[in-house]
Amino acid sequence: MNMLTAKHVEQAYERIHSYVHKTTILTSKTLNEVSGLEIFMKAENFQKSGSFKIRGALNFLLSMDERERERGVVTGSSGNHGQALAFAGKMLKIDVKVVVPQDASPAKVAAIQGYGAKLERFGTSSTERLRRAQEISEQEQRVFVPPFDHYWIMAGQGTVGLEILEELDEVDAILVPCGGCGLIAGISTYVKEKRPSVRIYGVEPDQSNSTYLSFKAGRRVELHNIQTIADGLRTASPGELTFPIVQRYVEDVLLVSEREIAQAVVFLLERCKILVEPSGAVTVAAAMFGKVPSKNKKVVAVLSGGNIDKQRLTEIFAMS
Amino acid sequence: MNMLTAKHVEQAYERIHSYVHKTTILTSKTLNEVSGLEIFMKAENFQKSGSFKIRGALNFLLSMDERERERGVVTGSSGNHGQALAFAGKMLKIDVKVVVPQDASPAKVAAIQGYGAKLERFGTSSTERLRRAQEISEQEQRVFVPPFDHYWIMAGQGTVGLEILEELDEVDAILVPCGGCGLIAGISTYVKEKRPSVRIYGVEPDQSNSTYLSFKAGRRVELHNIQTIADGLRTASPGELTFPIVQRYVEDVLLVSEREIAQAVVFLLERCKILVEPSGAVTVAAAMFGKVPSKNKKVVAVLSGGNIDKQRLTEIFAMS
Repeated sequence: MNMLTAKHVEQAYERIHSYVHKTTILTSKTLNEVSGLEIFMKAENFQKSGSFKIRGALNFLLSMDERERERGVVTGSSGNHGQALAFAGKMLKIDVKVVVPQDASPAKVAAIQGYGAKLERFGTSSTERLRRAQEISEQEQRVFVPPFDHYWIMAGQGTVGLEILEELDEVDAILVPCGGCGLIAGISTYVKEKRPSVRIYGVEPDQSNSTYLSFKAGRRVELHNIQTIADGLRTASPGELTFPIVQRYVEDVLLVSEREIAQAVVFLLERCKILVEPSGAVTVAAAMFGKVPSKNKKVVAVLSGGNIDKQRLTEIFAMS
Repeated sequence: MNMLTAKHVEQAYERIHSYVHKTTILTSKTLNEVSGLEIFMKAENFQKSGSFKIRGALNFLLSMDERERERGVVTGSSGNHGQALAFAGKMLKIDVKVVVPQDASPAKVAAIQGYGAKLERFGTSSTERLRRAQEISEQEQRVFVPPFDHYWIMAGQGTVGLEILEELDEVDAILVPCGGCGLIAGISTYVKEKRPSVRIYGVEPDQSNSTYLSFKAGRRVELHNIQTIADGLRTASPGELTFPIVQRYVEDVLLVSEREIAQAVVFLLERCKILVEPSGAVTVAAAMFGKVPSKNKKVVAVLSGGNIDKQRLTEIFAMS
């Protein structure tokens, strides 16, 4: 598999569908009034492990051969990818090790260990822990599972798009959070092949806009020292494999401010009664604050995850 | 209608079903592990107006005759009943006035006014504002809509029980929050007539235990100066009409502490990604903290509402 097609997404869905929730699609009259759009929220915050990342992790593990599975896997992650891989490993009885930063939150460490994965603390940056995970991969003969830049991962995440088209007959646009761009690469590949009229928009925090900058520059731009409350989108740059897909299929990248993200989290909580993490709420922020081009009426907002604890939520309340 | 039967609940459902959401029933593996039970959560926090109260309010308004509807209605409420009546009035184009306490939260006032209802501020206690609402009823010829102690209201709330039995074939017990007991009266009447083997348990905060005390004493006990974070359950005593039904049909009343309620709210938020107000989370608290008699395995927990703002949520985080 040295490219990605809708067929790969369908094959991924065959592999993983019995392990994941087919998440619900929510609507909110108030959100429609506020945004002037008809919004359909794909609630991956209700997904197993608390985010869409379980889809890619499962597809990766289920695509490995028997010998690789026996050797186990390793990744570096401070967040949803680590939790998802640990959860997927538990379901499939595959040994998982996750390298987390020295300052990883106790809640995330507890979640990863709760799923039975081994844990190592190393460094503080994403680069450091991914390098360490690759070291461990060689030392312990474990298969390294990248967080986004791999076709198996993208194909798994693309199943979100498959479920959206299965459920909704009329869609003008789909809004997708952008970090490393695994999710948007998977979704856009499936959707643009199957229903080319649907526009795909990436959404990024304006404080962590490497995809936006790369998209405008026509080449991958790398950022350093990124600060945003959307911790799942603090990626230095889109992936080597994901970015060409973004260039090919994505209509535009929309930007939202930190305050807009915080207000979207609070809106989803107080009005829709659901918990969505900042990285997952950027799409609703884009809809609420007029970032979506007006030619789009029926708009899907992917809520990518809901993993946020009460401490961070309290900080977000203060910002909103 | 001078009594309540399952037939009345069915008639109520005919009247209201096109106006309300048939709310989803959620499950959580983690909650099952923590409680040792198989829990089914009836998610009335996703109901229109944010709580089950819309069911009773709609059934009341739809049971009035044409002339009464033209005169409009009035109630006294600091919370979900007022919001629900305002929302129901908006849907049915009936003029609504709500008497709220002088210190009503700006969020609740905004919600009631947002639904187009008239608002009067009066006193601080429930007794004061209900008396004032009855005064207005006479002065302005509006029909007074009681918060719980009326068969039309109970029949409407009972439709929660109808939906539960429609969806679940095997149920050992249903846990229902108790305030004025309109919800449990409606649910238990329907369920005990239709499937007598199902046990109905009330759940109350131990700091606001008038139903528990009344149930044990065999007569209505009245409490004063009630302090609990479950603001929807701060009722002085069960109703004149609701209490005999509780005596007839309810198995027992379970008590939960303030801390247990706060922990249930946080659990539902962090683990299930849903916002449930303290009054609605008492049932999950009872399940989490071993209050449910062990003969029950398949247990429905009614999540009665989700109306809580970020300020109060922050206070609850501090308690949990």
